[in-house]
Amino acid sequence: METTLIKTLYQQAQHGDDQVCVLGWLKTIRTAKKLSFLEVNDGSSLKNVQVIVEKDIANYDEITKLPINSTVKVTGQVVDTPKAKQPFEIHAAELSVKGQSDSDFPLQKKRHSFEYLRTQAHLRPRTNTFYAVFKIRSLAAFAVHQFLQEHGFVYVNTPIITSSDAEGAGDMFQVTTLDLNNLPKTEAGKVDESQDFFKKETNLTVSGQLTAEAFALAFRDVYTFGPTFRAENSHTPRHAAEFWMIEPEMAFADLQAEMALSEKLLKYVVDYLMQKAPDELAFLDANVDDGLLVRLKKTSQADFAQITYTKAIELLEKADRSFDYPVKWGIDLQTEHERYLSEEVYQKPVFVTDYPKGIKAFYMRDNPDGKTVAAADLLVPRIGELIGGSQREERQAELTKKIGEFDLNPAEYQWYLDLRKYGETKHAGFGIGFERLLMYVTGMENIRDVIPFPRTPGNAEF
Amino acid sequence: METTLIKTLYQQAQHGDDQVCVLGWLKTIRTAKKLSFLEVNDGSSLKNVQVIVEKDIANYDEITKLPINSTVKVTGQVVDTPKAKQPFEIHAAELSVKGQSDSDFPLQKKRHSFEYLRTQAHLRPRTNTFYAVFKIRSLAAFAVHQFLQEHGFVYVNTPIITSSDAEGAGDMFQVTTLDLNNLPKTEAGKVDESQDFFKKETNLTVSGQLTAEAFALAFRDVYTFGPTFRAENSHTPRHAAEFWMIEPEMAFADLQAEMALSEKLLKYVVDYLMQKAPDELAFLDANVDDGLLVRLKKTSQADFAQITYTKAIELLEKADRSFDYPVKWGIDLQTEHERYLSEEVYQKPVFVTDYPKGIKAFYMRDNPDGKTVAAADLLVPRIGELIGGSQREERQAELTKKIGEFDLNPAEYQWYLDLRKYGETKHAGFGIGFERLLMYVTGMENIRDVIPFPRTPGNAEF
Repeated sequence: METTLIKTLYQQAQHGDDQVCVLGWLKTIRTAKKLSFLEVNDGSSLKNVQVIVEKDIANYDEITKLPINSTVKVTGQVVDTPKAKQPFEIHAAELSVKGQSDSDFPLQKKRHSFEYLRTQAHLRPRTNTFYAVFKIRSLAAFAVHQFLQEHGFVYVNTPIITSSDAEGAGDMFQVTTLDLNNLPKTEAGKVDESQDFFKKETNLTVSGQLTAEAFALAFRDVYTFGPTFRAENSHTPRHAAEFWMIEPEMAFADLQAEMALSEKLLKYVVDYLMQKAPDELAFLDANVDDGLLVRLKKTSQADFAQITYTKAIELLEKADRSFDYPVKWGIDLQTEHERYLSEEVYQKPVFVTDYPKGIKAFYMRDNPDGKTVAAADLLVPRIGELIGGSQREERQAELTKKIGEFDLNPAEYQWYLDLRKYGETKHAGFGIGFERLLMYVTGMENIRDVIPFPRTPGNAEF
Repeated sequence: METTLIKTLYQQAQHGDDQVCVLGWLKTIRTAKKLSFLEVNDGSSLKNVQVIVEKDIANYDEITKLPINSTVKVTGQVVDTPKAKQPFEIHAAELSVKGQSDSDFPLQKKRHSFEYLRTQAHLRPRTNTFYAVFKIRSLAAFAVHQFLQEHGFVYVNTPIITSSDAEGAGDMFQVTTLDLNNLPKTEAGKVDESQDFFKKETNLTVSGQLTAEAFALAFRDVYTFGPTFRAENSHTPRHAAEFWMIEPEMAFADLQAEMALSEKLLKYVVDYLMQKAPDELAFLDANVDDGLLVRLKKTSQADFAQITYTKAIELLEKADRSFDYPVKWGIDLQTEHERYLSEEVYQKPVFVTDYPKGIKAFYMRDNPDGKTVAAADLLVPRIGELIGGSQREERQAELTKKIGEFDLNPAEYQWYLDLRKYGETKHAGFGIGFERLLMYVTGMENIRDVIPFPRTPGNAEF
């Protein structure tokens, strides 16, 4: 008899006492006088199916002693139970054990702290919370791909190992095949990088943007979606050493077009999740973050606000509260400022545009005022900055000047300048930290809890 | 006036002399007595649109001197030209220059070698060949996601930085934040790894499979799709240091189920490309590999063959030709053997199953014969091995024994053993080298030509 997925059973409105066969894992077992109640899950659904096993089944004694996580095959009748908590249950005619489990499973039924569950990262997807989170992670990733492909964007796998320091955007991990206990040296006594795998120093990428721009100038609309790295010794709930970034890049687009697309993309992902993961979102709303569903609906329906950085500073200066980091024109906004603007002033996502050039990357386009650049960050409740975008400096002369002002090595950026030398095309793009997005759509408060096997200082287990 | 994509113009069957506005890059210009012929491309389509500019246009002199790659905005009438090479052309009423280009573009109209174009990796997507290849790369990636998501698979981002040596599958890149010119030492004079970012030695992953298995035992069907790394000093057209892998993993599945799914997935990708990239495939068939379309159709339509390794050795021993690597039971098949089987014996993709355990990874399930394991490689014409799969050893005792036989450190694999300790569930999976797949579906012969910015020994440019 063919196996039916538990997901499929839940999708059927009525069951009419059909015979079915389910193959899954035993999640809980409760034994009463004449029968046992088993909860079985097969991974296809957050929800388990309840299985009733009566005492007269041949291997009843074996069944009642089964440790959780054992693999079982249940054949029986699906019976609708409109008055019970679960909409249907299976009355087992046969239950066979397909795989054993030891009985000392470290995740017992009581609630474990997320801290403890991180030490069991190989087992935590079996809990409801992490099942919901990682299912949403998968669906959100696909929603991003689907939205961008439907809009004609070409997916580019930009390199992970790089010899450029990208935007000088923070500390990097070095990649090497040299034997650290037996390093080759130059005559001057330095490490001889010419003997390394790539014959020079290489690092893990901090952003795929610059190389993505090369593709935008051939394909018009492109995006990256891959891992990026920061070797910052940050021990906050918001920082991981390894995380995924989505970086769309659009030729012929200005800052307004960039913001319009990022708003559309974010709304698409939220709508996709509300449609495809209602059980998971409801579970997280009930157990992790009781404002989650309200926030997602608002994100889907509200028109995002838009203000300039200068206006944002005014609002912060007028705020009826104090901040840990003092506010004045020229500062980089801190999370507390970003959250105040999106949570208290606008109570929805808000784009802040035209930041001072000194606090933004060299590749952003100078505004005519000489002081600001065509940048736009999207600030959202609970998270702060979720998306960072800008119009890129497409003018060859201006970009050359900026590279000088930022003390970058022109030779290293020659290929990037070539993109302007052979086509000064207006273009713009943005980056979304995928894990920030996941924290926003799951309500999880620690980035370590939205990454399957998180990497943070001192932690690279599994 | 709103901009129309060139792709949209090609999708329309008739144009009826509509007024349109196109924004794109000048690809070629040819000037005759009374008019000029421009080819313009906007990245949305492999095909350019031809623009006719007559001498009486105000800035005609400026136009005729425009270097290629300049950004232009054309407004005019689309006129169907059923008798000409191109199905329609635009008669320009206005043509304005939106971005300048220098005139020394290194890719001139003559054909460049792929070797030369690799040195111009930031510009080569602007050529027809690489436009086609990277468009197909994007579509193939999406087809993989779409097929697996539609089949209920959960996408898992397995870690890139790892402290395990996975299957011992080849040389790895070390990841460090230590200053190589000033390494901290232990009292014994060795590098003090406890001072490194992760407080131990870490490397770039060679496979996400083992961690994906942890997720398959919670979600049933999962897959990874991300970058993997090999620090092998290989200078062949088939090896890159950085490449992407697709690794589906299925609980409750055996080797036959694994093969069935991989065949279905491969056919889905091929069908998707034939539907979504007909121009690109036709271009590659005409210019790169004239057997491409025939091979893809066959892949889509044929039932893949299936033989055991033992049978494959017999066929190779009986072959009416000699091989560089001598054939006998127990050897690892070489590309020449794999290609002979798929190209000459079966003339289509063929699964080879049940390899000798000594040449396969520790995690593969031992067959009852004591000599072979439940492995299956898919061999395809022109490439050789495209997919490697196996049923995993789910039996706790047998896996413990295998870890010993392979001289692996049991402590390091305890978490992997836990997956069996808490649920001995039959499961299977496979890995597809994404670039091998791309070489198969594009006809490109060098892996460096299907990766946007390839990394090979001595080469990490851009």
